Amino acid sequence: MPQNDCADTIPGRPISGSAGLDPQNWDSTRALGHRMLDDMIDWLSTARERPVWQQMPQALRAELRQPIPAGGEPIEAIYEDFRRLILPFSSANEHPRMMGWVNGGGSPAGFLAELLTGIFNVNCGGRDHAAIELERLVIAWAAEMVGMPKATTGVLLAGSSMANMVAVLVARRAALGVQVRSAGLQQARLTAYASEAAHGCIPRALDMAGIGSNALRQIPADANHRMRLDLLTEAIAADRADGATPFLVVGTAGTVDTGAIDDLPALADIAAAENIWFHVDGAFGATAALSKRFAPLLAGIERADSLAFDFHKWAQVPYDAGCVLVRDPALHIETFAQSLAYLTQELRGLAGNPPWPRDLGPDLSREFRALKVWMTLRAYGTEGIGRVVESGCDIARHLAARIASEPSLELLAPVVLNIVCFRVAAGAADLDALNRDIVADLQEAGIAAPSTTTINGRVAIRAALFNHRTVAADADALIDGVLLLAKRRNAFSREDRLE
Amino acid sequence: MPQNDCADTIPGRPISGSAGLDPQNWDSTRALGHRMLDDMIDWLSTARERPVWQQMPQALRAELRQPIPAGGEPIEAIYEDFRRLILPFSSANEHPRMMGWVNGGGSPAGFLAELLTGIFNVNCGGRDHAAIELERLVIAWAAEMVGMPKATTGVLLAGSSMANMVAVLVARRAALGVQVRSAGLQQARLTAYASEAAHGCIPRALDMAGIGSNALRQIPADANHRMRLDLLTEAIAADRADGATPFLVVGTAGTVDTGAIDDLPALADIAAAENIWFHVDGAFGATAALSKRFAPLLAGIERADSLAFDFHKWAQVPYDAGCVLVRDPALHIETFAQSLAYLTQELRGLAGNPPWPRDLGPDLSREFRALKVWMTLRAYGTEGIGRVVESGCDIARHLAARIASEPSLELLAPVVLNIVCFRVAAGAADLDALNRDIVADLQEAGIAAPSTTTINGRVAIRAALFNHRTVAADADALIDGVLLLAKRRNAFSREDRLE
Repeated sequence: MPQNDCADTIPGRPISGSAGLDPQNWDSTRALGHRMLDDMIDWLSTARERPVWQQMPQALRAELRQPIPAGGEPIEAIYEDFRRLILPFSSANEHPRMMGWVNGGGSPAGFLAELLTGIFNVNCGGRDHAAIELERLVIAWAAEMVGMPKATTGVLLAGSSMANMVAVLVARRAALGVQVRSAGLQQARLTAYASEAAHGCIPRALDMAGIGSNALRQIPADANHRMRLDLLTEAIAADRADGATPFLVVGTAGTVDTGAIDDLPALADIAAAENIWFHVDGAFGATAALSKRFAPLLAGIERADSLAFDFHKWAQVPYDAGCVLVRDPALHIETFAQSLAYLTQELRGLAGNPPWPRDLGPDLSREFRALKVWMTLRAYGTEGIGRVVESGCDIARHLAARIASEPSLELLAPVVLNIVCFRVAAGAADLDALNRDIVADLQEAGIAAPSTTTINGRVAIRAALFNHRTVAADADALIDGVLLLAKRRNAFSREDRLE
Repeated sequence: MPQNDCADTIPGRPISGSAGLDPQNWDSTRALGHRMLDDMIDWLSTARERPVWQQMPQALRAELRQPIPAGGEPIEAIYEDFRRLILPFSSANEHPRMMGWVNGGGSPAGFLAELLTGIFNVNCGGRDHAAIELERLVIAWAAEMVGMPKATTGVLLAGSSMANMVAVLVARRAALGVQVRSAGLQQARLTAYASEAAHGCIPRALDMAGIGSNALRQIPADANHRMRLDLLTEAIAADRADGATPFLVVGTAGTVDTGAIDDLPALADIAAAENIWFHVDGAFGATAALSKRFAPLLAGIERADSLAFDFHKWAQVPYDAGCVLVRDPALHIETFAQSLAYLTQELRGLAGNPPWPRDLGPDLSREFRALKVWMTLRAYGTEGIGRVVESGCDIARHLAARIASEPSLELLAPVVLNIVCFRVAAGAADLDALNRDIVADLQEAGIAAPSTTTINGRVAIRAALFNHRTVAADADALIDGVLLLAKRRNAFSREDRLE
């Protein structure tokens, strides 16, 4: 059927009414919204009384799996299903004893912002409206946080995975010129450098960018899990001698396993001397800039050519709110801007106000993330978030002290910020399996939710203190739980533990 | 300062209290939330009474630009600033006379879901929790919508720009094998094919993927703005003869300028015969599958190897909620999965339940987009969203009829779905400038907000009927406004228009 005939061949429908989805009378929508708000605040404020996690039963999973519905139904009924099928089975981020991976706990200012955002429903890809101004302000605040220049550009996105990808793309453009966008990588042999402790999203960004993850030289780390500078300079020299083009040095400000912070001033010096882009992955660690006590550990971060970090981690903004900053606005824009008839930027009207966020990153449809960042930072201030950072670091030290006092436990890495890696170090032939089992046991028992990782070849119980609701007693509950569950697994005899 | 000394050299702080951000008493937070909800529903339900758009005054922009605050402040005060500085200056998505670009209007079910999501605050990168199950269900619904197989995998992301990028990466892996992820593009000369009317995010995805936008053969379109099949097969043959590797055919189901739908069955046949990945960009058009009247135009979409589309456009889910579907789950997972110690997937506990969304796309931190999609589709059903689709298409036909009846106006492209491109075709030497001015005038006057594009070299006024609140009278207001403003610009004499 030729398309230009559609208007004739597809029967018309009277358009007297509206197919609109808004109710004629908003009373029941309002009432439901008020009830949801109260219920959810009840749920959040009683998190401590619940197990940290419980698995969703298979029967409920099966019940969830319905075909796509043809007719509509009252939102009240859908909400009841949410209460029954979804709410009890959260990812545990709300809970004070969630200590696994790197997960922020959200905050009242953040969730109130999300309430506004859902109704406001602006598209932040570009154009001339207040949300774009607010995103620019939040980017300026981010640059201010870490001491980058006022002209720094940036964009909010889902998280540090894409933030690091954006940085790789800007660095690629810096190395190869803007023609890389049209011509592709061609014969270029780019090489990048990061600590072996760098996050997996760094090699994945190189993979997505077509450079390939093999181009990443994973430089061994020292005993403190920081990139070895001597091996970095050696690797760069070897690649140059081999005819490759070193284009990117990635410093990690807070490695995901242990929280180690690379020697950023030295990396900045090396990158400057070698004329290589200096990127910092500060996914959670960059937020430590808000603590006067811990900011000195980040010295050198202000020299980054680009920085990736998340507001939804230590800064407790609700998911998701990643951020990338780029020191050179022109390079940043040249990496993403396109000239498209459909998206012509004008001098006036709604199509004004360039550059747009879509000129600074990969997304054109974008929710209004800046509002929750702005409201969170204003409500608690840098001091309030700084206190959350310090509290997490203090609890980590308390945890490390408890571990040191328990003969059956062993600390596996220095505690730099808020991450503690340890293990039960006695009582089983296969300690790796034992510690993995204990972590799953802890989660299934609802006691606490640490995660695991591998430190120097040994499976570690990893506790990351990111939730602002966590107090020292929660760390004690973790240790008590580890010891109890190790005992239940007969990992050590009665003589090892009194209980 | 060596990092392993930090625990000693950074003075400890008593951790008796908590640095938590939750209030001791939730009463004022609840009260503010209730007020926000009522205010925002008032704002939304009175959208029609306001100008469609108003520019944010420079003085207010300047007032917004404060340094990052050190101390916290009451959320009530921040909300007052939101009401004064942000809310009046929206991107106009809420308004029934927003007709520019492609913007959904949101919906009550969607914004209630966002209220829940902000407090629930789960991270949907992976792990074993209900939100992951719900995302799988929503992906199954998406596949069901367009007739793709049950085993289809997919992931929600910000929008079609990244959804198309994901598809390019899976197609790249399909063509070059999984080693492309580690080895990079090397000597490969990949070529891709799309209509010249395809969206700019297609060449940008090739750019980001390192293939380069020049690898995209922009195949000329016919008079109906559909890709010319003869020129496609010629281009593929020429590239093969030249030693290149054709790897991707992109069909567009709803071009952004005119809504044209490529001949998808023919493209599927060509791609199958040539053994090339067949991707469909159905950013907004795929949603027409929910209308019995318009679904036949999408025939062939079910044969796609991958499909990109957005729930936040025609399906009225709040921003953002893009979606990519991939027919071959193994290829999809092999394009993104990584083995990382820190993210080990376990058989039980919170780290169970593979594959995770982070194995299917670029993000590891991800908000809970599935909830708003699920609640919207359940609340209105496929029939309710189908009615929104049909209403938009009907109003577009009404608009086209009005344009045909006005001698000074000219329709510039066939109306296939809900997009109408036209112009004032008389009264000025420079019709392009005149029509651009009229669009900016309409926006500044608050009458309506169409956008512009270029059709066959001529600047068009482009009206896209995506908002479910729009009725035929709004289309009339657009035409009346165009004629009035053209007259104000002395574009034509009294004889042309009676008024």
